[in-house]
Amino acid sequence: MTRPIRVGIVAQLDDAARELCMRELTADEVVWSSGDWNPELAGCEVVFGNVPGDWLTRLTALRWLQLESIGFESYAPYVDEIRAKSIEVTNLRGLFANPVAETVLAGVLALLRGVDQVMLAASERRWATAEIRPTTDLLHARTAVVLGTGSIGAQVRRLLEAFDCTVVSYAKSSPEAELHTLAELDAALATAGIVASCLPSTPDTTRIFDAERLALLGYRTIFANVGRGTAVDEGALVSAITTGSLGGAVLDVTDREPLPEESPLWSLPRTILTQHTGGGYRDELLDKARRFVANLDLWREGRPVANAVNWEDGY
Amino acid sequence: MTRPIRVGIVAQLDDAARELCMRELTADEVVWSSGDWNPELAGCEVVFGNVPGDWLTRLTALRWLQLESIGFESYAPYVDEIRAKSIEVTNLRGLFANPVAETVLAGVLALLRGVDQVMLAASERRWATAEIRPTTDLLHARTAVVLGTGSIGAQVRRLLEAFDCTVVSYAKSSPEAELHTLAELDAALATAGIVASCLPSTPDTTRIFDAERLALLGYRTIFANVGRGTAVDEGALVSAITTGSLGGAVLDVTDREPLPEESPLWSLPRTILTQHTGGGYRDELLDKARRFVANLDLWREGRPVANAVNWEDGY
Repeated sequence: MTRPIRVGIVAQLDDAARELCMRELTADEVVWSSGDWNPELAGCEVVFGNVPGDWLTRLTALRWLQLESIGFESYAPYVDEIRAKSIEVTNLRGLFANPVAETVLAGVLALLRGVDQVMLAASERRWATAEIRPTTDLLHARTAVVLGTGSIGAQVRRLLEAFDCTVVSYAKSSPEAELHTLAELDAALATAGIVASCLPSTPDTTRIFDAERLALLGYRTIFANVGRGTAVDEGALVSAITTGSLGGAVLDVTDREPLPEESPLWSLPRTILTQHTGGGYRDELLDKARRFVANLDLWREGRPVANAVNWEDGY
Repeated sequence: MTRPIRVGIVAQLDDAARELCMRELTADEVVWSSGDWNPELAGCEVVFGNVPGDWLTRLTALRWLQLESIGFESYAPYVDEIRAKSIEVTNLRGLFANPVAETVLAGVLALLRGVDQVMLAASERRWATAEIRPTTDLLHARTAVVLGTGSIGAQVRRLLEAFDCTVVSYAKSSPEAELHTLAELDAALATAGIVASCLPSTPDTTRIFDAERLALLGYRTIFANVGRGTAVDEGALVSAITTGSLGGAVLDVTDREPLPEESPLWSLPRTILTQHTGGGYRDELLDKARRFVANLDLWREGRPVANAVNWEDGY
């Protein structure tokens, strides 16, 4: 019925996700790879998964690359090559909105409601109500700044509003944002009780939270970063938390991942390090496969695949 | 202008809360007590704070008791005496709705998003993303049962609905509840992803979560108790968590508080013990004083004071 194609699958999948892919492809069509180069990939016109950028020269038949992530900054050095070969690249935009936004709320509420403190007290079998209860605080009715108006930023905003927070969003050029310039951002940061960075990694966002900007945040403010670690000057963040000028931090992303054992972030007080687990959820891998399979149907029919990445803007 | 009255203040207050009370009362009117019996209390027609029940016989002038809590079950043995003397008793209904509901969400999201696991990993400086991420789960779109339709139950429900949960409430006789009988409750518990008990301590709610009812909850279900510890058979809860038949627990209240050092709850996995900190927030004591002062104005004017407790229903 449809023409046979060769599809390389290098994405990290579980059994259910693999089965779903196999229902949509014949055994002859699929080339599996668990991370090592497989010579048969060279003949694949479609690849599902985040291949190392230096494989692109060897993927001579590649016409469409379906990433298993939202971020694609690791392919920036290969943009000219990708364009020259007219390779379509699509990402998983939107897939992580609910889990990442829930991780933001989980971390922020944990710090405000003292979950970090009660867990420590429990490990010592210590009833510490009189000590912990006066240190708790409310999310209710805080002012919040959300950086980024993508699917994650939009969902973080929606959840904060459910706690009666007054939220403004920052994005350089999105009509959904109230704040478009750094001057507008800085004015809002100075009175924010919650700051959530959901920014992609681009030249504009690199170290946007430098020492100067972090110094605008208050001693009761919780700062969350679920975009990219490059957005933050980690030394300045460590210093702000250590001196108490910043109230707390929820970090799903860090400059280096895995975080090196010697990083001071590991033992920083009032800090929840979620270790890039924010996008996870029970059906994560199955939903990634579902997205790929839906796009594969479009590809087979010769129709445009969904969620093409935007190389100019970087998101 | 207004007649002088004698007011005993035994509530636990901070400086700001004490100052507020002192702005509304002359020095001659106030009798302070930090928990020990003060003979001058005998002449007070008004008392603010949870006096020990056995003080009531000595509080011969008492006509209005403003509690510093919502719960008043510790006065149950003294109801006849309170009625015989026509003492008005008011509580702080509604004051803890936001903090307690946020603690429910904090605990539930911590367990679902793996905050307990990342905190443990951080204490060992261990990057455990590959291990933790597949165990995370979403609150989004779960079914939930909330027990109790008071201000706390209502706010828990509202916040769960903001995460697109489908929520039904249980209350014996409230028109706001969908479930009124234990049979209806049990049918709903069997498919619930979240169960939040916000029940007062009454004969009807004692051990409502016995072994049989806890056995209805599923291995992915999170059970939260922010009402009273008496609602739960703790031995059965420990067993349900230990065997994995129940997904996790968030306990703000326990049968004995402070929790004894030998309690197995301290080291129970997938359990957040918030140690009765749920009602806390930065302005808690000040807001308690504000509530008292507002009622005091009514009392001075001879008008009915707000939030009289309902001895019949126990809440």
